[in-house]
Amino acid sequence: MSDLHELDLVRWIATRAPEVGDDCAVLACEPWGDLLVTTDSVIDGVHLHWSEHGPDAFGYKAVARNLSDIAAMGGEPLWAVIAAVLPRGATRAEAEALYKGAERAGCRLVGGDTSFGPTAMVNATVLGRAPERGTVLRSGARPGDAILVTGSFGRSLPTGHHATFTPRLTEAAALLATGGLGAMIDVSDGLSTDLWHILEASGHGARLEAAAIPRRDNATLEEALNDGEDYELLATVLSPTGRTDGDVSWPAGFTRIGTITDGPGAVVVDGHGNERALVRGGFEHRA
Amino acid sequence: MSDLHELDLVRWIATRAPEVGDDCAVLACEPWGDLLVTTDSVIDGVHLHWSEHGPDAFGYKAVARNLSDIAAMGGEPLWAVIAAVLPRGATRAEAEALYKGAERAGCRLVGGDTSFGPTAMVNATVLGRAPERGTVLRSGARPGDAILVTGSFGRSLPTGHHATFTPRLTEAAALLATGGLGAMIDVSDGLSTDLWHILEASGHGARLEAAAIPRRDNATLEEALNDGEDYELLATVLSPTGRTDGDVSWPAGFTRIGTITDGPGAVVVDGHGNERALVRGGFEHRA
Repeated sequence: MSDLHELDLVRWIATRAPEVGDDCAVLACEPWGDLLVTTDSVIDGVHLHWSEHGPDAFGYKAVARNLSDIAAMGGEPLWAVIAAVLPRGATRAEAEALYKGAERAGCRLVGGDTSFGPTAMVNATVLGRAPERGTVLRSGARPGDAILVTGSFGRSLPTGHHATFTPRLTEAAALLATGGLGAMIDVSDGLSTDLWHILEASGHGARLEAAAIPRRDNATLEEALNDGEDYELLATVLSPTGRTDGDVSWPAGFTRIGTITDGPGAVVVDGHGNERALVRGGFEHRA
Repeated sequence: MSDLHELDLVRWIATRAPEVGDDCAVLACEPWGDLLVTTDSVIDGVHLHWSEHGPDAFGYKAVARNLSDIAAMGGEPLWAVIAAVLPRGATRAEAEALYKGAERAGCRLVGGDTSFGPTAMVNATVLGRAPERGTVLRSGARPGDAILVTGSFGRSLPTGHHATFTPRLTEAAALLATGGLGAMIDVSDGLSTDLWHILEASGHGARLEAAAIPRRDNATLEEALNDGEDYELLATVLSPTGRTDGDVSWPAGFTRIGTITDGPGAVVVDGHGNERALVRGGFEHRA
């Protein structure tokens, strides 16, 4: 096994460039605003299969993954550039299908670089603008915040969801508009791991209700918490019970799955009131 | 052979997005300015060899190719993001060498995505700002303009120049500051092909002096004109003889190799006054 972990590398880059953000780099272009930049690759045999999913899915997923990152920062996507590596012998129709798939994800395509290589691969970089009140950060969670999610979790790979998901831009904008948003992240590494990203950044804990977590395709609780590639939003917002100036509700499309606690630590509570500690990628069993 | 040609694809994308520029996309972020965006990949076995050149060269070349594009538009590079695909089993030291190579190219690294795959590959996207007077375009050549180049041409692959070149940002800025710049492009496809990009965009012709073309490593004239991967600048500027308001000279680092003509057509003239027609990637022989 390699000694190399992506999270470590991202932190290493971040120590060298303060612009590195949670899901996107945040680049000051005042007075225009803060430019968001995010980049992701889709590789044959790793994220999709060229012979099974086809070039359209490669273009679509490469852009959609980035749009999910922009949504998590509360941003507005503006432009996408694509660098495609096509298998040798690829046809013009396949190349066009790839670029049309990229466009279909819903961001204006303004540039493309096309090469041929031994492995099909599409890299997309998406540029967007941060919300005027500032980007939404993982560190913004507050004790008492409701923990909300879009969609459902688990079994993304066997159901094909990972190749066809719709980035949650509309939902993110609606939640941002409520004014109660604390932290937000897109769930790509798995619900438990991405919740921990918020907890570590904010210094707080969480209490999840097992029965409240929406599961895709009859996923088990473990699959819902840990499978990953869900590309849903995980957000914390001011809770109705945590405010004195009246109720706050959340827009359509969100489900409450728990509450931010003073912490530290995260637990999942079942219908019988039994608690289990939640760690990255799984459970620790305890009384 | 595939029916797919990169130039065709770039044109196809350009018909769908007017922001697609010559070497970069040009994105209006007023009042901040025009944002330049360019993306390029370096693939193992295509542009470099991982086992021979090493991860540092992959990072360096991926960013440097983009900086050469930014230079050709007269722009100022600001930020780079990297998407690296490492061969399985790559070490942390190799990943860091790759990112340090990217930094060494001279642009601020603000984001990175790291994956593992069957083929090593680095994609870099560089963001910059266009000059206040507007980007330098290929279409700006005028009859009578002197044709200038930086550096020398040919045999870039056997000499290793293609992996170690210095992007011509300083030279581009100095030429821009003269106020006489017409068209500019970076020479990656070969001097003859990239000159034709200027001639087609401007609707004019060219007369090159064979003896004036600087050659790398005793390259033949054919190699200098057609090898490619030189990453030098090819520019047209107001000529001293083409102006009535006094002489214009050009900054250090540029060599004059010919003159823009009314056209159409391009010729190369040897020391005996013999002309040969210059086409993309080679000569057509004529009297």
